Amino acid sequence: MKTAFECIPCFVRQAFEAVEMSVGNGPQREPLMRRLLHEITEADWSVMPVTVAQRMQRTVREVTGVADPYRTLKNLMNRTALDLLPALTEAMRQQPDPQEAVVRLAVAGNLLDAGSKNRLEPHELEEHLKTIWDLPLAGSPADLFAAAQEAERILYLADNAGEIVFDRLLIEALPSGKTTVAVRGTPVINDATLEDADIAGIGEVATVITNGSDVPGTLLEECSYAFRQQFDQADLIISKGQGNYETLSESTRNIFFLLTVKCPVIGHDIGAPVGTMVCNRGKFAK
Amino acid sequence: MKTAFECIPCFVRQAFEAVEMSVGNGPQREPLMRRLLHEITEADWSVMPVTVAQRMQRTVREVTGVADPYRTLKNLMNRTALDLLPALTEAMRQQPDPQEAVVRLAVAGNLLDAGSKNRLEPHELEEHLKTIWDLPLAGSPADLFAAAQEAERILYLADNAGEIVFDRLLIEALPSGKTTVAVRGTPVINDATLEDADIAGIGEVATVITNGSDVPGTLLEECSYAFRQQFDQADLIISKGQGNYETLSESTRNIFFLLTVKCPVIGHDIGAPVGTMVCNRGKFAK
Repeated sequence: MKTAFECIPCFVRQAFEAVEMSVGNGPQREPLMRRLLHEITEADWSVMPVTVAQRMQRTVREVTGVADPYRTLKNLMNRTALDLLPALTEAMRQQPDPQEAVVRLAVAGNLLDAGSKNRLEPHELEEHLKTIWDLPLAGSPADLFAAAQEAERILYLADNAGEIVFDRLLIEALPSGKTTVAVRGTPVINDATLEDADIAGIGEVATVITNGSDVPGTLLEECSYAFRQQFDQADLIISKGQGNYETLSESTRNIFFLLTVKCPVIGHDIGAPVGTMVCNRGKFAK
Repeated sequence: MKTAFECIPCFVRQAFEAVEMSVGNGPQREPLMRRLLHEITEADWSVMPVTVAQRMQRTVREVTGVADPYRTLKNLMNRTALDLLPALTEAMRQQPDPQEAVVRLAVAGNLLDAGSKNRLEPHELEEHLKTIWDLPLAGSPADLFAAAQEAERILYLADNAGEIVFDRLLIEALPSGKTTVAVRGTPVINDATLEDADIAGIGEVATVITNGSDVPGTLLEECSYAFRQQFDQADLIISKGQGNYETLSESTRNIFFLLTVKCPVIGHDIGAPVGTMVCNRGKFAK
């Protein structure tokens, strides 16, 4: 997916938030914001949105010396998700279709996203989670589980901190011993890294690796050789979130996209309005 | 009021909308957006927000040759307001306090604002208008009417198209023969001009003048001599909307600010949360 014109104000919003996260209202705020605005102004707007975001987040880390500006927010997201987990697990067990229920929960976690516009703040999550059993859901959780049954190696591409706590439930529901979970190689926005996988206890239910990259998505050419090997060898890929969707939507691999549509540009590409929960097989999957 | 750091993403959103309004998705879109981003990047961020907006809107008019990019939207806003007027007038008459009711309606019209973030689209207005009788209201409509009774010359500073249709009801409720209504001298964003005053029939209930300026607010040093004379001679000024508030909040004149708080920066300055209806005497009014 290429950057749409509508992405430009969103880049600026992301830049603004990254400045707030990294330097608060200190003296670096204005020069850093001007530098990021300049980068957006001069950027190639035909690349993928995550590439523009990657470069901005690099600038923020380099200029401020803050290696992980969203760490406090990510900790809050993880804690919020962990606090809600017992009640949600119980509510999930009350649902008539267990496969659909666990997919809905993993997809709902995707609303915990600092990078997108229509996201939920951690404190809004609890209220929203009551609605997730009835929201429109595109795609078929049963197809996902059938594909998982057939697969020998499943690669699960995590998206954000907080969300990854709910991912664990879905990973546990997949056939055991098949799944490798990949997180980002370097902190970028609020995307999950090894630290978040650890907090969510993913290592107890799957193999955890990083993709070796600081893109808030999965740009294969920027990922480590080790990750690309895993990607090539997997016979099912489960891709969480908008960033992974943006970068892999044209993949011909056997891939399922699980996300909540949070922006109209992605919604247009998927063919579903903002707010839709998605569990779609890739359009170009062979 | 000076520009706050939070205004920067809002400038970009305004720029984006102005580009859409003036050139749609034509070939001018990207270079115009880059030029506006560059202007924001290089702007003095210590001026008033309306000054940054004024310069951007000038650029849009100059580069595109479109003298009034928001004309279609303004026509829609006027038409929507006129369509709703009979039912609202009836609902207003059912309210126990007629002064408060007419102020509430004029203030609610202020949500029809293309320049601010928390605005209503024309189609959302009808639903919202049902709630306006019960929303929190800061300030005292009775004080406003008492001041109007005492005043000899009232200057009413209009804000937006659409909104000005509701302003007419409040202007009619003021003591007759005292009121001059000022609109912008040049089209800027969706601010009301003579054309909108004419559509709203303001000339039937008051004298209509322009302020001679293309600022989306009232920067006296940019207004015409004729307007400044009116401003100086008025013994009561009624200022509608955020743009007029931004530019006149420190005025020591006998001024009332009528607006809906649509942004946290202005809310912070006023001391009221986003969504509050305001009918406040100026803090520095002598």
